[in-house]
Amino acid sequence: MTPEYSPLTRFYHHCDSLLLDSGLQLSEFQIVYETYGQLNSEKNNAILVCHALSADAHAGDGGWWDQLIGPGKALDTNVFFVICSNALGSCYGSSGPASINPETGQRFKTSFPLITVGDMVNAQAHLIDHLDVSQLLMVIGGSMGGMQALEWSIRFPDRLLSCVSIASTSKLSPQALAFGTVGRNAIISDANWNEGHYDDHSIPVNGLAIARMIGHITYLSEESMSIKFGRKLQEKEDYGYNLKTDFQIESYLQYQGHKFVSRFDANSYLYLSKAMSYFDIQKSHRSLENAFKLSQARYLIMSITSDWLYPSKDSKEIVNALVRLNKCVTFTEIDSPFGHDGFLLSQTELSKVITPFLKGVFDDQ
Amino acid sequence: MTPEYSPLTRFYHHCDSLLLDSGLQLSEFQIVYETYGQLNSEKNNAILVCHALSADAHAGDGGWWDQLIGPGKALDTNVFFVICSNALGSCYGSSGPASINPETGQRFKTSFPLITVGDMVNAQAHLIDHLDVSQLLMVIGGSMGGMQALEWSIRFPDRLLSCVSIASTSKLSPQALAFGTVGRNAIISDANWNEGHYDDHSIPVNGLAIARMIGHITYLSEESMSIKFGRKLQEKEDYGYNLKTDFQIESYLQYQGHKFVSRFDANSYLYLSKAMSYFDIQKSHRSLENAFKLSQARYLIMSITSDWLYPSKDSKEIVNALVRLNKCVTFTEIDSPFGHDGFLLSQTELSKVITPFLKGVFDDQ
Repeated sequence: MTPEYSPLTRFYHHCDSLLLDSGLQLSEFQIVYETYGQLNSEKNNAILVCHALSADAHAGDGGWWDQLIGPGKALDTNVFFVICSNALGSCYGSSGPASINPETGQRFKTSFPLITVGDMVNAQAHLIDHLDVSQLLMVIGGSMGGMQALEWSIRFPDRLLSCVSIASTSKLSPQALAFGTVGRNAIISDANWNEGHYDDHSIPVNGLAIARMIGHITYLSEESMSIKFGRKLQEKEDYGYNLKTDFQIESYLQYQGHKFVSRFDANSYLYLSKAMSYFDIQKSHRSLENAFKLSQARYLIMSITSDWLYPSKDSKEIVNALVRLNKCVTFTEIDSPFGHDGFLLSQTELSKVITPFLKGVFDDQ
Repeated sequence: MTPEYSPLTRFYHHCDSLLLDSGLQLSEFQIVYETYGQLNSEKNNAILVCHALSADAHAGDGGWWDQLIGPGKALDTNVFFVICSNALGSCYGSSGPASINPETGQRFKTSFPLITVGDMVNAQAHLIDHLDVSQLLMVIGGSMGGMQALEWSIRFPDRLLSCVSIASTSKLSPQALAFGTVGRNAIISDANWNEGHYDDHSIPVNGLAIARMIGHITYLSEESMSIKFGRKLQEKEDYGYNLKTDFQIESYLQYQGHKFVSRFDANSYLYLSKAMSYFDIQKSHRSLENAFKLSQARYLIMSITSDWLYPSKDSKEIVNALVRLNKCVTFTEIDSPFGHDGFLLSQTELSKVITPFLKGVFDDQ
């Protein structure tokens, strides 16, 4: 698959090497990004938006966070300069397994080095340098985007004034690890995967679809599934008594699985899923307190009541560590029935919290 | 795969047809069963044990409910005549997709008709006739076994004195349906499945392993996973930074998935999983009250605190309907960290409740 770009898409090519957490390095890399609004003359109004596993740089202008980004919205583009970059390892233009290896002229595929959330953040920092922003007003994201926001505040404690982490965690729980590994196993055990060296005509569609279906279940809450689908049958009055689908929830998941295959690279899925499983602030810094001790950012930590993938207790663990460090932290639990997907589906509720928080940070600087 | 039988295994061959809930019929069928203890002269001490999705007739004598069945145990084989039969549709000797179709001399595979929990119960009733038991003292089971116990009390309201349903439900929630359908999709999308017509040398191992791994996650609680595995690495000090497994939970799930493949038939998995998705007492009887209104059994409904697959609220819904009908019902929530698997792993706790309940039923008859 070849990514489709919006008219706003820009390309940043970093011609120098990037040392990765694995100890390996990329000899060069590309980051795709979009910006909304203008950098002011003081260069103190830049906000970096970080996306989740399957998204891209197109957050505003009709993109995945359109209700949050735009004139008069929470991330008000009349006031702020909003940047969203595609994560390193993804398949929407930034360097990843589907990119061309400049040394061979062929796609990297699984010769691309494994990356971490920290590597994503390091790559973003080079983009921010390129955009001539020395200090970000805010780094904000949900899910894997929230991990990046937290990591920014740890790696670059003096380069951001605020950090907003939504529906995220300092480390995946064993259950979340388990769902991730089963999804990756589904891809890897697909005969088409071929150690990652599939071509465009024989991609591991079944494995990737299964991985996406598993993911989807974890993104929805039991409540939202019950409201939306219940046990309703799909275009039939009674069970079919065969091995085909009967229930709407089955058709929905199959549809989501197969739709995903046409827009996402299976190797990228493996890499980003693995990066999330490796994210563990306690492990990499011995403790949360140790990790956050140098941070100068104000924190807004938001969880979603019905999120069982990264439940509120994960957020509270981060908040408690920040409180113990006497850092400035605001915690809000968004009352939303949408489960983990609430960071995408409850943008109105998010706005109500982000707007005054951001105003406070901007006015106080 | 060919099932291995214990020395206690017996075979009941029913030479007449069985009309199925689908409207189709089996021209004949076989049920494999084991018995422990002796039927007394009054023939009033027979207990039927029903198993869950992946188990077999070998419940006692070192089998999967060994702590519950035996001399001096809750199902005391010095007093009771305990029967456990392999479910219709399974692959441990009872008729199912892996059985030989007598009309062709070949395995049925997916020409075997779809079956329901009610069909399993109807087949068991013929076995009970064969064993010369007109009324069972108890029908007891966990998970899919609990569904069979409930169904017994509905289909044969005067043929059992008590019904014990453990970690079960009157219908799968949309989330449980979703996990089931993804598992079935993993099997069906495995290139080896071949519409069910795989041979013994090219079975859909990857799909079945993925289905089992998904199942396993739902059988464990987050708490038990955290205690048992946490984020511990598997025989390494640091991440491998490759696409292989890093965490113990990953190795465990892979091991469970691949172990299952050697002992279970993929088509049987599809059939039993589908039967569970079809189980819906409200749908088949318009309401729970309508379903249970003729039942004469005493009920013991047991749920497990940490079971999120069939949570306590599912059991309470059944209990509330029975209470509204003024039926004799006891409800206990077993405090166990083992999740859904608690019906297998917390046998000591189950015994403490089942023993006095069973004594009461036996003494009062």
